This record gives sequence, structure tokens and C-alpha cells, in this order.
Amino acid sequence: MGFAVTENHDTKPLIQPTWHTCLKRWCASWLHWPRVQRRASREDWLFNGTFHEASRGVLMMAQLFSIMPVCGILAKDPRKLRFSYTAGRAFYAYFCAIGIGFLATMSVYFFASKRYHFQKMVTAFFYCYNLYAMYRFGRLGQRWPALMVKWARVDDSLPPQKGLFERAVLAYRIKLCSIMVMALSLSEHLLSIVAAVHYSNNCPAVHDPYEAFFKSNFAFVYYYFPYSTWRGFLTKFFNVICNFMWSYVDLFVIVISMGLSHAFRRINAHLFLHKREKMTEQFWGEQRQKYRNVCDLVTTVDDHISAITMLSISNNLFFICVQILNSMNSRPTLVHTVYFWFNLIILIGRTLAVAMFAAEVNDESKRPIEVLRTIPREGWCLEAKRFAEEVTTDTVALTGLKFFSMTRQLVLNVTGAIITYELVLIQFHKDEASDVDLCKLKRMDTL
Amino acid sequence: MGFAVTENHDTKPLIQPTWHTCLKRWCASWLHWPRVQRRASREDWLFNGTFHEASRGVLMMAQLFSIMPVCGILAKDPRKLRFSYTAGRAFYAYFCAIGIGFLATMSVYFFASKRYHFQKMVTAFFYCYNLYAMYRFGRLGQRWPALMVKWARVDDSLPPQKGLFERAVLAYRIKLCSIMVMALSLSEHLLSIVAAVHYSNNCPAVHDPYEAFFKSNFAFVYYYFPYSTWRGFLTKFFNVICNFMWSYVDLFVIVISMGLSHAFRRINAHLFLHKREKMTEQFWGEQRQKYRNVCDLVTTVDDHISAITMLSISNNLFFICVQILNSMNSRPTLVHTVYFWFNLIILIGRTLAVAMFAAEVNDESKRPIEVLRTIPREGWCLEAKRFAEEVTTDTVALTGLKFFSMTRQLVLNVTGAIITYELVLIQFHKDEASDVDLCKLKRMDTL
Amino acid sequence: MGFAVTENHDTKPLIQPTWHTCLKRWCASWLHWPRVQRRASREDWLFNGTFHEASRGVLMMAQLFSIMPVCGILAKDPRKLRFSYTAGRAFYAYFCAIGIGFLATMSVYFFASKRYHFQKMVTAFFYCYNLYAMYRFGRLGQRWPALMVKWARVDDSLPPQKGLFERAVLAYRIKLCSIMVMALSLSEHLLSIVAAVHYSNNCPAVHDPYEAFFKSNFAFVYYYFPYSTWRGFLTKFFNVICNFMWSYVDLFVIVISMGLSHAFRRINAHLFLHKREKMTEQFWGEQRQKYRNVCDLVTTVDDHISAITMLSISNNLFFICVQILNSMNSRPTLVHTVYFWFNLIILIGRTLAVAMFAAEVNDESKRPIEVLRTIPREGWCLEAKRFAEEVTTDTVALTGLKFFSMTRQLVLNVTGAIITYELVLIQFHKDEASDVDLCKLKRMDTL
Amino acid sequence: MGFAVTENHDTKPLIQPTWHTCLKRWCASWLHWPRVQRRASREDWLFNGTFHEASRGVLMMAQLFSIMPVCGILAKDPRKLRFSYTAGRAFYAYFCAIGIGFLATMSVYFFASKRYHFQKMVTAFFYCYNLYAMYRFGRLGQRWPALMVKWARVDDSLPPQKGLFERAVLAYRIKLCSIMVMALSLSEHLLSIVAAVHYSNNCPAVHDPYEAFFKSNFAFVYYYFPYSTWRGFLTKFFNVICNFMWSYVDLFVIVISMGLSHAFRRINAHLFLHKREKMTEQFWGEQRQKYRNVCDLVTTVDDHISAITMLSISNNLFFICVQILNSMNSRPTLVHTVYFWFNLIILIGRTLAVAMFAAEVNDESKRPIEVLRTIPREGWCLEAKRFAEEVTTDTVALTGLKFFSMTRQLVLNVTGAIITYELVLIQFHKDEASDVDLCKLKRMDTL
Repeated sequence: MGFAVTENHDTKPLIQPTWHTCLKRWCASWLHWPRVQRRASREDWLFNGTFHEASRGVLMMAQLFSIMPVCGILAKDPRKLRFSYTAGRAFYAYFCAIGIGFLATMSVYFFASKRYHFQKMVTAFFYCYNLYAMYRFGRLGQRWPALMVKWARVDDSLPPQKGLFERAVLAYRIKLCSIMVMALSLSEHLLSIVAAVHYSNNCPAVHDPYEAFFKSNFAFVYYYFPYSTWRGFLTKFFNVICNFMWSYVDLFVIVISMGLSHAFRRINAHLFLHKREKMTEQFWGEQRQKYRNVCDLVTTVDDHISAITMLSISNNLFFICVQILNSMNSRPTLVHTVYFWFNLIILIGRTLAVAMFAAEVNDESKRPIEVLRTIPREGWCLEAKRFAEEVTTDTVALTGLKFFSMTRQLVLNVTGAIITYELVLIQFHKDEASDVDLCKLKRMDTL
Repeated sequence: MGFAVTENHDTKPLIQPTWHTCLKRWCASWLHWPRVQRRASREDWLFNGTFHEASRGVLMMAQLFSIMPVCGILAKDPRKLRFSYTAGRAFYAYFCAIGIGFLATMSVYFFASKRYHFQKMVTAFFYCYNLYAMYRFGRLGQRWPALMVKWARVDDSLPPQKGLFERAVLAYRIKLCSIMVMALSLSEHLLSIVAAVHYSNNCPAVHDPYEAFFKSNFAFVYYYFPYSTWRGFLTKFFNVICNFMWSYVDLFVIVISMGLSHAFRRINAHLFLHKREKMTEQFWGEQRQKYRNVCDLVTTVDDHISAITMLSISNNLFFICVQILNSMNSRPTLVHTVYFWFNLIILIGRTLAVAMFAAEVNDESKRPIEVLRTIPREGWCLEAKRFAEEVTTDTVALTGLKFFSMTRQLVLNVTGAIITYELVLIQFHKDEASDVDLCKLKRMDTL
Repeated sequence: MGFAVTENHDTKPLIQPTWHTCLKRWCASWLHWPRVQRRASREDWLFNGTFHEASRGVLMMAQLFSIMPVCGILAKDPRKLRFSYTAGRAFYAYFCAIGIGFLATMSVYFFASKRYHFQKMVTAFFYCYNLYAMYRFGRLGQRWPALMVKWARVDDSLPPQKGLFERAVLAYRIKLCSIMVMALSLSEHLLSIVAAVHYSNNCPAVHDPYEAFFKSNFAFVYYYFPYSTWRGFLTKFFNVICNFMWSYVDLFVIVISMGLSHAFRRINAHLFLHKREKMTEQFWGEQRQKYRNVCDLVTTVDDHISAITMLSISNNLFFICVQILNSMNSRPTLVHTVYFWFNLIILIGRTLAVAMFAAEVNDESKRPIEVLRTIPREGWCLEAKRFAEEVTTDTVALTGLKFFSMTRQLVLNVTGAIITYELVLIQFHKDEASDVDLCKLKRMDTL
Repeated sequence: MGFAVTENHDTKPLIQPTWHTCLKRWCASWLHWPRVQRRASREDWLFNGTFHEASRGVLMMAQLFSIMPVCGILAKDPRKLRFSYTAGRAFYAYFCAIGIGFLATMSVYFFASKRYHFQKMVTAFFYCYNLYAMYRFGRLGQRWPALMVKWARVDDSLPPQKGLFERAVLAYRIKLCSIMVMALSLSEHLLSIVAAVHYSNNCPAVHDPYEAFFKSNFAFVYYYFPYSTWRGFLTKFFNVICNFMWSYVDLFVIVISMGLSHAFRRINAHLFLHKREKMTEQFWGEQRQKYRNVCDLVTTVDDHISAITMLSISNNLFFICVQILNSMNSRPTLVHTVYFWFNLIILIGRTLAVAMFAAEVNDESKRPIEVLRTIPREGWCLEAKRFAEEVTTDTVALTGLKFFSMTRQLVLNVTGAIITYELVLIQFHKDEASDVDLCKLKRMDTL
């Protein structure tokens, strides 16, 4: 994990911070952020309220797992962001990509060359998916600096955030959400290791516990290659990155959605101050222009991340289906049972979180209409009319490859589809169990 | 059931009515309402036509079952409503909540600790659902006084209701509907007791009929706790409250919907007086303002009760699915058969009633367009245009947690889904029964 | 079938035509209509182009089967229509209603009192459905005179139809369509009799062919009542009425849809004369008014017949599902096979015809937009704008109890649902048949 | 394949080109097009950028397979197109139609007269489908000259394409796409022959390899007719035409969609030059007029080809379902396995290509709104308003028989339906395969 961030342009661009400094600062920003910030406020401004500033912690964390290797991610000024093919973090990313690519190739080969087996297909899908996600984040990284500059410009054009709290709230919310998602993912991963270890220990085939664990987890590698301990840990390292990426794709969509809905919320807050009031046509023209800027921003961001949104949604739906299908099987031990249900609940929770946060962008983009409807007769003007038309007509939302918009309606449809699928499965598996159980109080002891 | 309403502020706030007076007055208002009202008309006005006045009977009935413990519910003036954590009815509610919480805990534990059984899951779901509904009504109770004040203000701004009948019609309709829903629920509950008694009597395990009845109904309690008669009646008491609540959630949504669609109907009635007429711009501005007030009221009410609406719809759909699934089983006695079909029909009827009454709000909110489309050329003005745009563009309806709007379309979708589900089940269960039955007249005797 | 039309007010109201004259005239109007009309043109005008005139033949035919007993149905002037509870045809309708009610009661009782059998349910459904349809047509009959007067007034307000052909085209189309639908239904019914006779003849249980036929067809009657020949023919008579009604419900919706889309077509034809032209505001105002009148007519008609539309669609879908389900069974003889497929094709064809003709109303109501979009800049005015808004915003269509609109979209959805259902059935029944059939050329001889 | 194009009116109409010249020129245009074009630029203009010019290569190729026999297809000027019932290529088409009609009749008879077999139904469907497609293209051919003249007129009214590349890009894209689609179809067809040969060679029934091949492929012919070699090749010739047509229907929809979206793209490119600018009302009026012309063109084209679009989509969905159903069967040899998956992937790819290219028409028709939303306050005028309303309100897209519009939404729905179908199938076939496979590393060797 030794990598040096040589070209990181921070607020003082002349002094190149080593990766030690970087990491320390980043850890500090998570563990002691109130103190850090207090100190920071003496040096530079405490929170300017931009999205770039609010999201840099999360992005830095992702870089530890080789995702989106953009230099200068911790800089306050988005103009200092830079993408380089030859930076240290880029090489780290190449290395991880090669490792994951190897795992993906092996798992596909293992799946294709053997008799059809559902679980093998899932494994192959998992690694291919992560490889593709890595590629998408790499592509996004190239365009990230330009995107952040555009976003910062839109942020500047919005109504100013006066209080300290107002400027800090987005960063706090993003940090809180990231910690929760990551903590849950981590505990789920640890639990999966516990379950695997528990099972492989009771497995008489192999004596070395590490060997048993790695061989059962990476059968698609060690079926073709000889096993050694360092190889085992290396595969596990790439596997950890995949597991992180698996959660991070969701988290990334959530963070972006938070940023966009925050921008709309700033406009709405300003508009609601003038509810039922008679304003000039110029006022409505300016507000409409600000609203239009944010809409354009949503479109631009969506052009860049719609593939990632699609990945997030399709991947989650796929694994929910797989897990619901698995729920019909019996599990060998209690640890497996606990792990299984914990995994399923986290999966559903995360999918809903992505859908709900993304839907919030759409919800917030519709709220100006509440103010526009209350404009009194004398205050009604051409610009207000155009504003109202735009708000009611256009659908402003993140999309999955432009195929579907992320709205509340989608959440309902997806939930309905999952429940239907579950119902069909229950129908065909649990039919015999629904008999009458009166008068069986005694015999239940023996069950 | 001994509780004293000590802080009930009625029309004469200085004299505190005891719960005896309260109950008597409430009973009287149901049994002899024409006479009571005639007498009332001498004291105070006979029906002012507000929603608060029309709904207070139903709400008082709910308080007998510990739901939504707001003080002053029988007062004519909504400003006398008050929520208190320390009122007698609040303590009554705490007591019931603890009891239902206990039943919910036991049923979940019973379900989770034993082998999977579908019926146990249904039981656990039933009690958890009721506990959550109780919590939601508690939360709603806190905000009810403010909501009713707002509603009263909107009611005042609407076109005046001249005749006595016009002012009374909402109250009559709500009372009639409540009586019907409650009578059906009661008979269904009594029938379920008859079925259970009938069966447990023929069950040789236990000799005491009460014991047999309670043990078979509350197996999840008496499997862990010793049985005694008073415990049996206590569990039955909480069970009765749950059964009431189960119907009341639906009734509550119906009553609210009636109130809201009545408000729209008052506006529509006024507008239809001026169909095809040329009115001033001021007239349309005022009407639009009134319409907007009711729309805002719908949004506010929906913010408060959308969770309850969601509960009502999802719970009914769940139990319809369960019952359709059960319909494939054979039933032990005729009583069970009758009870089963009675229950299913009531369930479907109540679900449709909720959906239809809620959809009426949306239907009524669309009707002004019929008048607006007939405005002659000379009478067309900016405010009429805005009015028409608002009516055609906005969706004004109650929602289920903002995920879906309660419209006629929803009724169709839900019905379609139920029929599809039923079809799939029939398909896989009754396949063998559809053979040709010509020439079998004789042999049918022996079936 | 002896009934006297005593109160039929024709064009010469003083001379009461007997039912002989009526029938003769009606038959003549079908068999020799060109000659009749030629003669008629000497007496009164040849076709005034109203819907009442175009549809009276079909309605008269329905009255032969006791449906919608309105007096004066053959009169040219819709103001001479009258509904009477004491007219001869009303008594004929009472008689048939009692007969069908008896059959419905017996079939329900037969279904409910015996072991569950799918085919019995279908029979019970068939008679109940027809009884309800008869009731709906009776209700409609009461309001038919007023409806026709309103329709005639709208017809008068439309752009005049100049040529003879233009005025006759609606009547011709309705007659052609009626003859086709009824001829197909008749042949289907005859084929069903052939199939039943063929089968009951080979059935050794009963010797009298009539007895065998009637007993196998009306098992639900003769299981409880003794058989005699006149009873057999009476039941068959009511059965024939039911079969007619079954087709007539669909035909009625088609005829109404033809009338409504014809009204829109008259407006559109007039508008298309002025495509790309600059017209005065007054012109657009008048056209909008005419369009609005037809829209109002559609709404009024729909208020009256939406229950019948719902009946038609739901009944057809139900029987298509039943027949698709039956298609999985093997049939005893070739006659049955032919009858089965003929029946299924007619059923699907009739359902599609109803849906397509009803959708045409909606399609035609959207066509004015094609002209409005081509108005040049100078000709654009307030009334044109209002017209365009109404056309694009409002959905003008027949509905099924206001739950769904009859549009092309619906046709697609319904077709999709049927195909899905068929696919699921094929999936579970024909799975074993899809094996590889290469190299089996020889062995196919023996199949 | 010997046919003479006797009435081909090219740019020099007096000298009749023989079919040799025609074919040579056509081949040259594919193999050496840069050189040909360079030479052509000396004779006449190099690419005028019309759709007719861009599509004539593809249409000529189709005529080699007897599809849409319009004379003068290679002429630069669309006014020289002509449809004749007595032209040589028309007779060639009659000949092929008779052959395919014969195959269709035999396959239907073979399916109907024998025991139900799924594969036989697919074969019968295949030939009937192609026969109908041939008929539709024949009908389209009659109207093609008029359509192209209209299209050319719309092309002329669009903003001029200045550069050489701009005028050539549509033709290049169409050629590239055609080559890809046809190359894939060809390789798929060759692979199917290889698979069939491979299998029939190992089949001991018949010794002559040609006989074995033709008899197994055209069992529905040679079951009734004696076999001879020339008959075998003749049937194969008609079969090749069917296979070509099967792909060509899709390609045709793609080519038309490319042409239409290109027209919108020209308008959009011109509009985007003036983004955020204040333009005169006249400018917006002209742009709206151009946009309207293209919309009218889409409607006209759709009137002509909506049946072909429907054919393309429904046929592809049908065969995807068939193949997914077949995917559950095991395949005899590796060649069959490769062929099967290659076929399925091509099928899905081609369906998605059709849907995506057709959806692009709709996408491009919505893009002017991006410019219209940025018009500054001073530049907002009546024509801009009308333009914006038309863009947001109307759905401009190709349709399938007017039942559904080809939009991105459709792609999603279709994909969802296929996945659901696949899931249901997997569910019922692979249930037993999803067991736990830990600790089975050793035993996997033996699989």
C-alpha cells in the first residue's frame, strides 16, 4: 500500500505534501474534525459550502482503494484538481486494475469451462462488474477536474449561505452518511469472513486454516494455480478492494445526489422567503436563471455519471434477486444464517438509500412550483410564467444511462418488482407449510 | 376501562365534564342524534358544517379504544383541542400500548424461535402493524389541534353553505359510513370468535372452554406463560383493541377523504352556478385562491397522514394476499368456511372503499376544468388561464408516503394485481379440475 | 315472441303501427334497404345523417331479443322516443328477465352447492353477467330518449353534411358492422349446437336426442327439475337471448363509438379544409365551441354507458382467459376442435374490434392538433391557443366505469397481458415437447 | 439470379443501363467507394447530402434479394424513381414471392396436420412472416417514389450543409451500419449451415450429404414431395432470401431512423449556434417551420413503414423468447452450442440496435428545448413559445402500427420483459443447481 502522492496541488502548491502528510491530514479530518476545523478556520476560511469541499473526504477515502486517481483531491480550490496518467496514484490504480482483471478472467473461465453452476456465475459477475466500475471511475476521473470547476461556478451563482452552520451542513451530512454506509459494509464483510472461517475450520479437507479459507473463497484461482500464503493474501487484497468498490458505487451516487439536491434546496430556501409576495419580473428572471443553471448542472453531471448510476441500480437488483433466490436454501450454521440476513437487509437498505437520495434531486427540483402558485395576480409576469412552465414540464433527475429517471415513482416500481418476485418464490416453495395449526400446542415442543 | 377525562375543554370550559357525562353525551349523539341536535340547536348553533364537528363522533369512538388521545375532542371549537402527555386518556393509551407491545414482542419471538410457519408470521405481522399504527396515531394526535385549526380556517374561506341540510350532510355521511364499517368489522370479529369457539369445543385437549379458546388464540403467549382466566381476558382485551384499530385505520382515511372532497365539492358547486357565464377577472382570482387554499390543505393533511394511508393500503393488500393464499386450503367446518369468505369479502370491500373515497379527492379536484372550458371568449382572462393550468397540471391527492397518489388509476392497478395473483394461484392449483363434464349427470350425486 | 308495439310514435303519430307493420318495415329495411330508402325518399328526406337514424336498425333488432325496450325506436325524430314501464315490449322484457334470472339463480346454486368445478363457475358467471347486462340496458333505456335528443342537437350544430353519400355513410357503416358481428355470432352459436348434438348423440345415457341435448346443456336446471320437451325449448329460448346479448353488448359499444368518432370526423374534415390558412379568431372560437360540444357529448354518453363498456371488456377478457386455459385440454372430437378455435378467434377478434373502435374516438379527438400546429404566425390567436391547449391536455374517450380510458394504448396493454398469460401457460404445459427433431423424418410417419 | 433492369432511369435517362452496368457500379460503390466517389465528383456533385442518395446502396442490395422492386433506385434525383408492375425486377419479385409462398404453405400444412410440435410452429411462423414482410415491402415500393420526393423537398428546406464531410456523413454511417448488420447475419447464416452439415453428416439415415442436409432442413417439403438436387438448391435459394429479409427488415428500420434523426440533427446544430442569444421572432418562426416540416415527414414516413416497424419488433421479440426457451435444452455438439449463443447474441444486439436507433429520432426531436430554455427575457416571443410548447407536448417518433412509440422508455420496458421472462425460466429449471459448493474443490475434477 506504499504509494506517494507526488503531484498533489494543495492550497500551498509549491510545497509538495508527501503521502504521509496527506494520509495524516485525511485521518485527522475524520477522527478529530471539529478540532481540525477550528484550527483550519484560523488558517483559511472554515467551509465555503461548495460541493467539492464537502465531498473531498469521501473521494480521498476511495483513492486509498485505488478508485478515481485524481491529483489534488484535498485542495480547497477545485481548479487545482488534475488528472495524470503518470502520477503515483495512477500507477497504484493500474496495479489494482490488473489484479482485479486477473480475478475476473479466472472467474469467467472457471464458470465457462465447467458445468453450469449458479454460484459460479454470481462470482464471475461480481468481478467483472467491479472491473467495469473501476474503468468507469477511471474515465470519470479524467473529466472530474472540469466538472468540479463547473460545479463550483454554479455554487457561486446560487443565493449566498450566510451562517457557518449553513455552509457546513452539506459536508456534515455527507460525512455522516459515508461513515454509516462504510461501517455497515465493513461489518458485513467481516461477518462474511467469520462465516467462511467458521465453515472452513470444520472442513476436514485441508489442515492449514489460511489455506482452507483462501482455497474455498478463491476456488477459481487455486483450481488452476498452486497455492502459497502470500498469493492468498494478495488475492484477498484485491477482493477487499472489490468489496469496497461494491459499496462505494452506491455511496458515490448518494454523495452526488446530496450535492445536487442541496443546490436546489438553496434556491428553494430563497424562494420560500418570498412566498405570497409580489416580486418584480427581474426577480423571477434571476431566480429562473439560477434554477436553469442547476438544471444544466444536473444534466452535465448525469452525462458523466449515468453509467455509474446504472451500474449501482442494476447490480443491487441483481444481487437482491440472487439473495432472495438463495433465501429458499437452508444454511449450514447459525453464523451463515445471521450473515445471510444481515447481508440481505444491508443490500435492500443500500438500494433504497441510493434510490431515495437520487429521487430527492427530482423532488427538490419540483418545489419552486409551491411558491409560484401563490404569486398574487399583480405579481404574475412573463418570467414567472416561464419558470412555472419549466418546473412543471421538465423532468430534472439523475438517470440510469438516460433509460429511466431516478424518481420516487422508480422506488415504488422497484419495490413492487422485488415483492412480486419474492411472492412468486414463496408461492412455489412454501405452499405445503400453510396448514391449520390449532390444537397443536403440545406437539410444537417437539419441532 | 375506568378513565377520567379531567382536562376536557368543552364549550363551557369552566365546568369540567366527567367521563360519565362525556360518554353519555357521545352515546346520545349516536342513538338519538335528531333529538339531541334539536335540543342542541336551542343551546348553540345546529351544525356549522366544519369538518372538525363532523368527525368528532368518530374520533371520540376511537378514543374509547385508546387511539389518538387528544383532549377536548367533543368541543365545537377546534381551538379548544389540546394534546397532553399527562391527561387521563393519555395514560389509558400508554397502558394499551404496553399491552399491545407485549403481544407484539411475544408473537415475534414465537415466530423467530420456532420452525418457519406462515401463520405465525401473519400473527406477528398483525400485532407489529397495530403497535406501529398506535404510534402513528399518537404522533398525529400531537399535531391534530393545529391541523384542525388550519382546516377550520380553510372551511371558513369557502363559499358559505346556506341551508341546514347542506351544513349537516357531511356529518351525516361520515356517521353513516362509520356505522357501516364498524358494524361489519364487529360482526366479522364475532364470527371469528364463534368459529374459534366452535373448533376449540370439539378439541379434546383442554376441558375448560375459556382456556381452550384463549390458548388456541394466544398460543404465542401461553406457550411461555402459565394460563389464568383474568390473563386470558386481558389478552383478549388487547386483541379487541387491535382488531378495532385494524378497521379504524381504514375508516380514518375514509373520513379524512370525505372531508377533503367535501371542501372541493363546495367550490365546484359554486363554480357550476356560473357555467358558460362571463365573469370578471376578480371572480376567477378569488375562486382560484379558494381552490389553492384547499389544495394546500390537502398537502398539509397528506404530510400528516400519508404514513397512515400507506399503512392502510399495504396492510390490506398483505392480508388480501394471505387470504387468497389461504383460499386454496380446505377448511375444517362450515363455520370456518362462512367466516373465511365473509372476512375476504369485507377485506376487499374495505380496501376498495378506502381507495375509492381517497380517489374522490383527486376526482373532485379536477372538476373545475369543466367550468373553465366553457368560459366564452370575452370572459377569458389571465386568472382563468392560471386556474385552468393549475387544475390540469397539478396532481392533488392523498398519497402513500408520497410514493403513490390515491387516484382511480391506482384502484385499477391494485385490482389488476390482485386478479393476476389469483389467476396465477388458480392456474397452479386447480389445473386438474377443468375436465369435460358432459354425460356425468348421474355420477354427480355421489360427489 | 308475440308482442304488440302499441305506443310506437312514428313520423305519423296518429296512426299506431301494429307490431306486424313494424317488423315488416324493419325486415324490409335490412333486406331491401336501397329500394325501401328510394321509396322513403319520396315520403320524407333520405337520411338526415343523425346518429339516431343510423342506429335505429340495430336497436330494433335488439328489441326482438327484449333488450332496451324503448318505444318509438323507428321514428325519424328522436323526440318521439319514449320509455314506458307498461308498454308491450316492456312486458316482453320482464318475461325474459324473469327467465334469465331463473337460469342465473339455478346455475349459481348448482355451482355453490356442489364440489368446486371450474366449468360450473363459468356457466354461473355467464348467466349472471347477462342478467346484469339486461338490467344495465333497462336503466339505459330510461335515459335513452333524453340522450338521443341531446345527441341530435349536437349533430345539428356540426358542420353540415352536403352530399347524399356523406349523410348515409354512418348508417351504412353501422349496418355493415352489425351484420358481420351478428353473422359471426350466429354461426358460432350454431356450431356450438352442432358440437353439443354430435356429442350427446354418441352418449348412451339418454335415447331422446332432444332430451340428451337439453339435459347436457342445462344440467343445472334438470338436475333439480323434471324434464319435459316444452321446458327444454323454453330454457333454450332464454339461452338464445343470453347468447345474443353476449354479442350485442360488444356491438352496442362499437355502434356508439362509431357515432362519436363520426362526429369528430365531421369537425376534422371541416378543419382540414383550412390547413395552413390564416383564419379569423371568430372562426377558431366557433370551431372550438363545436369541438367542445362533441367532447361534452362524449362525457355524457360515457356517463350512461361506461358500465356497459366495462361489462364488455371485462367479460371478453374473462372468457379469453377461460378459453386459453381450456386450450390446454384435449378435445374429444374434430367438431369440438373446430368449434373451440372458431370461438376463440371470434372472441379475440370481437374484443379487438371493441377496443379499436372505441380507441378511434380518442384518436379522432386528437386530430385537430395537426391543423392547429400549421397556423401561420399572423393567424395565431387566443382562441386557437385555447383550442390547442384543450386538444393536447384533455383525454376525450369512452371509459370503463371511469377507471380506464379506451385508447390505443389500452389495446396494446390488453394484448400484452393476454400474450404473457398464454406464454406462462405454454411454459408450464409444453415444456417437454420442445426437443430436437432432426433425423426423425422417418419416424414421423408413425405419429 | 439473372434479371435485367430494363427501365432504370439514371441521371442520363436516355441510355438504358443493363443490369451488368448496374451491378458493377453497385459493387464498385461498396468495394472502392472513395475512388468511385472521387471520380464521381468530376462527373456530378459529390454527395448532395439527401437521404435518398445515402440510402440507395442499401436499397439496391435489397433488390438483389427481390425486395421492394422500385426502378431507378440508383438515380441521384428521387423524381426518377418509378414503380412498375411489369419491370424485370418486379417479375423477379413475383417469382420469389411464389417460391416463399409455397414454402410458407407447406410449413403451415406440415405444422397443422401433424401432432403439435413447437419447432414446427416456429418454422411455419418464419416463412409466413417473411411472406408478409415481402408483401409489405411491395406495398411500400408503390409509394416509395412519392415519399422520396417529399423527403428530398424537406431536405432542401433544412439549414444547408456546408462542408463535404457534413454532406457525406449520413451516407457513410448508413453504409457502415449496413455492412456490419449484413456481415453478422451472413456469418450467422453460414454458421447455421455448418452446424446443420456437421449434424446431418453424422446422421446415418441418408448417404448423400446434400440430400441429408436439405431433407433435414426442409422436412416440411420433402415429406410430401420427392427429393432431387435442383429442387434442394431451389428451396435453399428461397430460404436464403428469407434469411436475408429477416435481417433486412431490421436494417431498413435502422436506415430510416438514421435518416430522420439526421434531419433533426441538422436543425439542432443550427439552433445550438444561437444558444443564449436574443433572436428575432422571425428567426424562431422559421426554425419552428423547419422543425414542423421534419415532424410532418416523420408522421408521413411512419404512416408508410409502421407496419414494418411492428414486424421488426414483434418478430425479434418472438424469436428471442423462442431462443431463451431453447436455451434450457442441451445441445448435441459444440458447433450447435456456439451457433446457438452467437445467434442469440446477434438477435438481442439487432433488436437493441433497432430500438436504440429508432429512439434516437425521438431524442433528437426533444433537443431544441435545451436552446429554447436559455432564451433571455428580451428574446422571448410568441413563436418561441409556440416552438417550446410543440417540443414539450408532442411525441415525435416512429411507431409500431401507432400502438407504441419507439422511445428510450420502450427499450427499457422490452429489456425488462425479457429479463423477467428469463428469470422465470431460470427459476423453474435451475432450482436444484444452486446448492452450496464449499469443500467440493476435489470433487470438481470429476465433473
